[in-house]
Amino acid sequence: MTDHAFTSLDGFRTLLEGLPEPDAQALADAETRNSQLTKPPGALGRLEDLAIWYAGWRGSARPEITTPQILIFAANHGVAALGVSAFPAEVTAQMVLNFEAGGAAINQLAANAGASLQVHALELDRPTADFTKGPAMQEAEFLEALAAGWNAVDPTADLLVCGEMGIANTTAASAIALALFGGEATDWVGRGTGVDDAGLGLKAQVARQGVVANPQAQQDGLQALRCLGGREMAAMAGAILRARHLRIPVLLDGFICTIAAACLERSKPGVLDHTIAGHVSAEAAHATVLQHLDKAPLLSLGLRLGEGSGAALAIGTLRAAIACHSGMSTFAEAGVSDG
Amino acid sequence: MTDHAFTSLDGFRTLLEGLPEPDAQALADAETRNSQLTKPPGALGRLEDLAIWYAGWRGSARPEITTPQILIFAANHGVAALGVSAFPAEVTAQMVLNFEAGGAAINQLAANAGASLQVHALELDRPTADFTKGPAMQEAEFLEALAAGWNAVDPTADLLVCGEMGIANTTAASAIALALFGGEATDWVGRGTGVDDAGLGLKAQVARQGVVANPQAQQDGLQALRCLGGREMAAMAGAILRARHLRIPVLLDGFICTIAAACLERSKPGVLDHTIAGHVSAEAAHATVLQHLDKAPLLSLGLRLGEGSGAALAIGTLRAAIACHSGMSTFAEAGVSDG
Repeated sequence: MTDHAFTSLDGFRTLLEGLPEPDAQALADAETRNSQLTKPPGALGRLEDLAIWYAGWRGSARPEITTPQILIFAANHGVAALGVSAFPAEVTAQMVLNFEAGGAAINQLAANAGASLQVHALELDRPTADFTKGPAMQEAEFLEALAAGWNAVDPTADLLVCGEMGIANTTAASAIALALFGGEATDWVGRGTGVDDAGLGLKAQVARQGVVANPQAQQDGLQALRCLGGREMAAMAGAILRARHLRIPVLLDGFICTIAAACLERSKPGVLDHTIAGHVSAEAAHATVLQHLDKAPLLSLGLRLGEGSGAALAIGTLRAAIACHSGMSTFAEAGVSDG
Repeated sequence: MTDHAFTSLDGFRTLLEGLPEPDAQALADAETRNSQLTKPPGALGRLEDLAIWYAGWRGSARPEITTPQILIFAANHGVAALGVSAFPAEVTAQMVLNFEAGGAAINQLAANAGASLQVHALELDRPTADFTKGPAMQEAEFLEALAAGWNAVDPTADLLVCGEMGIANTTAASAIALALFGGEATDWVGRGTGVDDAGLGLKAQVARQGVVANPQAQQDGLQALRCLGGREMAAMAGAILRARHLRIPVLLDGFICTIAAACLERSKPGVLDHTIAGHVSAEAAHATVLQHLDKAPLLSLGLRLGEGSGAALAIGTLRAAIACHSGMSTFAEAGVSDG
C-alpha cells in the first residue's frame, strides 16, 4: 500500500475489500504465553486481551510499542457560521499554531506517551459547505481529504492515534450519527466545547436539517461522511483504513473520531477490527456510538477535548499491557508454583 | 517525621492527629492556572481535578512527578492453612523472588511508569496467627509491621503506590470489611486468585468466624487491622500514614490495599485525603469499599492481581494529567480566543 491520490469514490471503495486480518499464529502464541505468565489466570483483566490483540495485528507473540504516531487533522465547517459552537471559527487556525508551538494538551500527552505528533491543517480558509443546504463536500474535495489522511500514516508506525480540531465539528458528527443510527437529533447533540441550552437546541436543528438536505447520507457511510462531515473527519477515516492495510493498531479518540470510524464500519462491517476505543468522552453521544460499534472504551475520565487526547492517554495503558505481556517471567522461568 | 520504632498502639494513634493539609495557596494558584489553559473549561475532565489535587499536596501550582515510589510488602497468613486460596502459601516467598528478579507484572509496570520499586518481605516464615481462633497479631508484632511500612517510605518521593503479596490475604481483607462495614460475609468475599464455589463458601465462613472471634475488630480500625489483617496490610497502613505526614500523594491499589487504608479512615476520618483510588478491581467487594470511602476509581480494567499493579498503571494517568496542567500554554500565551 503506497501513497494515493484517489480519483473516484469507487476507487476508494475498493480499498474496503481484501483487508488483512491479524496473524493467527501470533495470536495463538500470545495466548499461550499469556497463560504461562506469573499471575493467576485472567488477573491482569483487560490488559491481557489488549496485549493479545496487539500481538495479533503486529504478527509477534512478544511485541513492543516503539514508534506510536499521533496525527491531528484540522478543518473548518460551513455550519460554524450558523453559531453552533461556543468558540469562533478562527480558533481552529489559532489552535493549529498552538499545536505547532507545543502548547496544547495533545503536545503534552504525546510527549508523555513517547509518540510522534504531526499536525495537518486542511484548507482552513476554505470551510466545507453549509450542509443544511446540500453536501458539505463535493466528491473531489472529499477524495482529497481522504487521501490526506491515508498519506499521513507513517508505514513504520506501530500504533496510530487520530485526533482533530475543527470548530463546529461536534454538530457535524451529530448529523452523521443521526443519519447512520436514526433516533432523534436531540439524542446525538451535546455541549461540545460548552454551548448553552439554546445552542444545544440549535445544534439539534442543524443536524436534523442536514440529514433532510442530504438523503444519500442515510444510505451509505462514505456518503454520510462526504455530505455531513468535514475534511478532518474524512482524513481520520482515510488514516484509519490505511492503518488497517498496514496492520497498524489504532486507538480511537472521542466522538468525532469515532463517528469518522463509524462511517467506514457502515460501508464495510469489520473494517474496525484493528481499532480499540481509547476512552469514552463526556459528550454523551459518544457512549451510544461505541455501543453501536460494540467497542468497550479503555478509559472513562470525562474528557471532551478532542485533539486525540483521550486516545493519547490510552497509549500509556496499552504500553503497560504490552510491557507486562512481553516482559514478565513464566511460572517455569521464575520457579513459581502455578496453583 | 523521622523513622520510628513504635512502642505502643497509643503511640501510633497520636500520629493520626495533627495531620498536614494541602497547601491552600498552591491549590488556588493551580485552579487559576487550570482556568487559563488552552482548552474549553472542564474539557480535560478528571485530569484537571487530579492535577489540582496533586498541586495542593505538593505545594506547587505547576508540579511535576519525578520520583514515584512503589513499595511491595509480602507476608503470610495463618488462615492460609485452612485452604482459602487457590495457591499454596509458599507462593508468597516464590513471588518475592520473582519481584527481586524482575519477572512479575509489577516490575514491568514500575519500569513503564518510571517508578522505583522496593520489596519488603515481612517474616514470611512466621505467618500471622489463625484469626478464627483469636487476634492475627499481638500488639508488638503489629507495631513492627506498621513501622516497616512507615520506615519504607522515601521522604524524597513525590508519589507513593503500596502493593502487596500474601497468599490468603483476600480472606483477611474480607474479614476486615465485614468487621468495619457489616452486612453478610458473602458480600465481602470473591474469587481472589481463583477459588471455586466451595472455596468461596469457605472464605465466607472463615471471615465470619474471624469477626466472631475478634469482637474488638468491630470497634476500631486499627484493632481490625491487628486482629484480622496481615503484616503486609499493616505495613501499607503505616506507609500511607507516613506519606500523609510527608504530603506525598498516594494512589491506592486494589481490595487489600484499600482495606488497609480503610482501617486508618475508620480510626481517623479524613486521613485518606491525600489518596486517590488508582483503579477498581474485579474483586467485587473492592467497589463497595471504595463507595464507603467515597473514592471514585481512576481506572476500571478488570485487574485483580494486587502487587500494586492497578495503582502503578494509574501513575501514567496522573503523570499525563500533570503534564497537561504544567506544560500547556495559557490562552494569552498562545494567542487563542477564549470563547
